Amino acid sequence: MGLSVHPVPGLPEFSPGDDLAAAIAAAAPWLADGDVLVVTSKVVAKVEGRLVPVAPGEDREAARQRAIDGETVRVVARRGPLRIVETRHGWVVAAAGIDASNVAGDALVLLPEDADASARRLRARLAELLGVDVAVVVSDTFGRTWREGLTDVAVGAAGIAALTDFRGTVDAHGNRLETTQVAVVDELAAAADLVKGKLAGLPVAVVRGWAAPAPAEDTGTRPLVRLGPGDLFRFGTRDLVPSRRPAAEVVPRPGDLDAVAEAFRVAAAALPDFPVVLRYGGGDGVVDVHLPERATVTTALNLGAVLGAVVVQLHAEGWATRWEPVGTPGGSSLVGRLWLGSTPA
Amino acid sequence: MGLSVHPVPGLPEFSPGDDLAAAIAAAAPWLADGDVLVVTSKVVAKVEGRLVPVAPGEDREAARQRAIDGETVRVVARRGPLRIVETRHGWVVAAAGIDASNVAGDALVLLPEDADASARRLRARLAELLGVDVAVVVSDTFGRTWREGLTDVAVGAAGIAALTDFRGTVDAHGNRLETTQVAVVDELAAAADLVKGKLAGLPVAVVRGWAAPAPAEDTGTRPLVRLGPGDLFRFGTRDLVPSRRPAAEVVPRPGDLDAVAEAFRVAAAALPDFPVVLRYGGGDGVVDVHLPERATVTTALNLGAVLGAVVVQLHAEGWATRWEPVGTPGGSSLVGRLWLGSTPA
Repeated sequence: MGLSVHPVPGLPEFSPGDDLAAAIAAAAPWLADGDVLVVTSKVVAKVEGRLVPVAPGEDREAARQRAIDGETVRVVARRGPLRIVETRHGWVVAAAGIDASNVAGDALVLLPEDADASARRLRARLAELLGVDVAVVVSDTFGRTWREGLTDVAVGAAGIAALTDFRGTVDAHGNRLETTQVAVVDELAAAADLVKGKLAGLPVAVVRGWAAPAPAEDTGTRPLVRLGPGDLFRFGTRDLVPSRRPAAEVVPRPGDLDAVAEAFRVAAAALPDFPVVLRYGGGDGVVDVHLPERATVTTALNLGAVLGAVVVQLHAEGWATRWEPVGTPGGSSLVGRLWLGSTPA
Repeated sequence: MGLSVHPVPGLPEFSPGDDLAAAIAAAAPWLADGDVLVVTSKVVAKVEGRLVPVAPGEDREAARQRAIDGETVRVVARRGPLRIVETRHGWVVAAAGIDASNVAGDALVLLPEDADASARRLRARLAELLGVDVAVVVSDTFGRTWREGLTDVAVGAAGIAALTDFRGTVDAHGNRLETTQVAVVDELAAAADLVKGKLAGLPVAVVRGWAAPAPAEDTGTRPLVRLGPGDLFRFGTRDLVPSRRPAAEVVPRPGDLDAVAEAFRVAAAALPDFPVVLRYGGGDGVVDVHLPERATVTTALNLGAVLGAVVVQLHAEGWATRWEPVGTPGGSSLVGRLWLGSTPA
């Protein structure tokens, strides 16, 4: 019972092409079956050559912002130079996980291209070199919404299930646990960080005593990615801009009327200062928006306010929209059509 | 070098009024100076009587939703029965941290009233009982945005600094670390969870080898709370409703014009289908909103759309707003005034 967490001292500074597994095998010949080897993503990225050079005289911060652009699928929130982005791996992290510490001044280190594959290779090579069956976790340091301070989490894993699933099990009081999945690879990364530190030149640690067998299917950290419908925080502050892609093409998708009805309800509740009752109708990705009476400037302004909030809400829920004004209607109450759906991939 | 993490077996089931410190002292007489004792919040809450009874025949889920209401300062996101809320303690957590597992069927367990105070009391009592100087972390199981799986974090602490601050230190390459603060109490809670488990009846673990002296000022977990201006994710999906409090009273605060200018810029970029150029002016918490020309229904609608998005954006940034329409202007371009500031506490 119990765990121990051991740093691995004596590792060299790594460069592209270095044999990380051989260096670890030499520094930790005591590795044993069942150990969890936790390796900081930075050294994995360095040996894999995931470096962006910073030219002499070039501004390091400008180079970093450009490197972030290259790793970013989507900006989730932004404040000044700080960008929280979704990376190609599906991680949502400040600055795409690129930072400028623990690397020489002429380079920046990206996250590994595929840290699950890196972990699998490291695991296989350690089996060859030392004859041991270890799990490997590749860790990185992430922030958390609503909490100060960073913690280490897993961005790659091999030979270990990322999640321990307690769903459906029953506690001592007979209560069925409905939703509890524990991100054990993140907890292992956090435990390892306690002995690694940010400055001590200790990029590797070993957790001993975590007695879980390797899973049948080695899905690495993919089960940890939560994006799409399960994500309730798709857009943060200052990120109402849904996409750089023009919304001219909007492909209908199911659920549009429900989404609009809900968005109107939320918007109307959020904007009590803009009283408007409006009718909407249509279907198949297009919603006709009517004013309830002959439009005056005030009612049009109020309708517009609710409509603007509706569009923002729909974007936040992942819909694409396009607004087609009908023009100043002569006696008609129809002011425009709201198209919604997806944009073509 | 290195840490060890030990479960504390042999603890009884706890009830209100029980002496938790005495039970821990009896089960872990081997506690030593410098150990970090990690205690699941649920047992702390139980001995402190933070239980909500569920009457016979009463629906447990309905009782739970009512209990969540009582602990909630603000709903941050909502989907169906799932609510992610800000608690009175400043934690943002699903269901206000109330769950229905590991407790008898006739009760629900809330988070401790003040888990930092609980940790301080436990620490002082263990010093009395065993003559040891330990740190105490009260842990709870939280979800994380954009990641599946829960991890344990700290909701209370005593005798330990919540954050280790590396800001301003210099790495081996001469790079100054600008932003790195590590939430070590969260990492300790995560490490302890690896030996506690959700079902095993092991609510307490000890981390040995974390060699940080007690801080001069014992601020517990308060430094971990990130709300207000630093929070880029103030509103999640389906939560544009800013507050149940009427915004009739809005107290000016500094920065209003800058905030409005930025919100107009973001809103205009987010709503390219509603072209409008508008002037805004004023100050001291009130912004006059003008149409750029004599208002037509179309320009008023477009202005309204941008204005609605502006209001949503301002709410997302933590401002309170009140809109005061001027009425249909006779030749004037002024359509209304947007008051913004805080609402009185």
